Amino acid sequence: MTYPTLEPGGSLLIAWQLRGKRVLLVGGGEVAAGRLVLLKNADAHLTVLCAPEGLGSEMKYRVEIEQVVDEYIPSAYTHEEQLKRTDGGMYDMILTAIDDADASRAICAWCRNHRIPVNVADVPPECDFYFGSIIRRGPLQVMVSTGGKGPRLARQIRQRLENAIPVSTGAAIERVGELRGALRRIAPQPDQSAQRMRWMTDVCETWSIDELAQLDEHAIARVLRGWHDKTIPTYDEVLGSRRTWHWPHLRDYVAFALGATTALAVGAAVVHRFRR
Amino acid sequence: MTYPTLEPGGSLLIAWQLRGKRVLLVGGGEVAAGRLVLLKNADAHLTVLCAPEGLGSEMKYRVEIEQVVDEYIPSAYTHEEQLKRTDGGMYDMILTAIDDADASRAICAWCRNHRIPVNVADVPPECDFYFGSIIRRGPLQVMVSTGGKGPRLARQIRQRLENAIPVSTGAAIERVGELRGALRRIAPQPDQSAQRMRWMTDVCETWSIDELAQLDEHAIARVLRGWHDKTIPTYDEVLGSRRTWHWPHLRDYVAFALGATTALAVGAAVVHRFRR
Repeated sequence: MTYPTLEPGGSLLIAWQLRGKRVLLVGGGEVAAGRLVLLKNADAHLTVLCAPEGLGSEMKYRVEIEQVVDEYIPSAYTHEEQLKRTDGGMYDMILTAIDDADASRAICAWCRNHRIPVNVADVPPECDFYFGSIIRRGPLQVMVSTGGKGPRLARQIRQRLENAIPVSTGAAIERVGELRGALRRIAPQPDQSAQRMRWMTDVCETWSIDELAQLDEHAIARVLRGWHDKTIPTYDEVLGSRRTWHWPHLRDYVAFALGATTALAVGAAVVHRFRR
Repeated sequence: MTYPTLEPGGSLLIAWQLRGKRVLLVGGGEVAAGRLVLLKNADAHLTVLCAPEGLGSEMKYRVEIEQVVDEYIPSAYTHEEQLKRTDGGMYDMILTAIDDADASRAICAWCRNHRIPVNVADVPPECDFYFGSIIRRGPLQVMVSTGGKGPRLARQIRQRLENAIPVSTGAAIERVGELRGALRRIAPQPDQSAQRMRWMTDVCETWSIDELAQLDEHAIARVLRGWHDKTIPTYDEVLGSRRTWHWPHLRDYVAFALGATTALAVGAAVVHRFRR
């Protein structure tokens, strides 16, 4: 038995859970606005600390028009008391994206003393964690990280990866989640858990991502019959009729017919010419 | 000006920095062994807490043969004092992968009281962060996460992504890092930083990943001449001679010649037949 070879030198890539967690973002420029998107996409309860004159156009839009910032404190960072919540409690995470290196250093030191995860934009030693390049397809999130070694290449690689994930992936994940929920309702016993997992794995390996994305309520009910029979219904059995009239295939047939006709015509012309 | 649309419901994907950080891993089974790989690949200083009879075969191998565990404490988890370091300090992160739900819950509560990031395997509400499926190519790390919504599909998607990243990507990132280091040595002024970044971006966009992976010391020196001339040397200018005799291309030429010969032969035969 061989085990995976260790490959030191990386980071620990993780999906941090921020739903309902309180996060302080210090700064209002472009970088801060980028952080805001990441934080709100992770459902954080967000406080922004920044003087009104420091708000860039995107941050202004998020604060004033879109109003997605849960609490906006219109002052620049000047002292450590600002790093505590207005109700006196502690933030769960603090990010800064400001140009003042001394202030950044002070914020980082304070966070470390208080065991609050901290990220100081552009100053790796003052970060407990780094950000990467993100691809999103509904519940699917992909992060590309080079540990700060190649941000430009990371963008190129991100582009390749984006092309490799079908657009239907988000829908497929949602539909599989619904199938699993329905399965748990008809087979709720805890001692069936391993069997449930195996059956779900088999379905996911039998159906392609594009096919899984087409699962609706009726199709899910038909797939679930397989659970009782201990079989894995195929896409053709469940939604086969849909495939027959699926446009991309129709186009394939037309293209094939056109190709064959052209070949026959050219062949006939050649034969005709040489027979003459 | 439009800004990215928010898409809530995700996690905050981050690259947590563990170099030299002290991590406690409670448990010794298969899941714990998987965690060990992730932690050691991120250069953590690792303590494993597990009774000797609880060590599975992989963990036994890591502890006894490979000796990559920095400190092994041969006892089961029974009380909270075990969650402090043997020198009395605090761990920077605690992971558990044990079957005892009560013990897991107690460990999670203790960690939250002490503001220590914690992950309890298989119990999402007791996790500050989740793990995803990882692809590694040297300094490149890619994480695929479905926020727990589709672990099976995540594996399928991981496979697609793996196929989309050239094997040479790790080497390309290392070489680009060397090029950037060399550039910083010949143009060290801080006020040239934006110009350096632009030039590096242009190089990375002009050269493909496979081409960047071939940069050696001599090639780097030749590319750097472009910095002085304010140009971006192409791969052909710097390493073009290498491409001429590059095997895959030679094979293309041979295949082309064979194809053309075959076509000519068939054409001649047809003409000959009809001329007869």
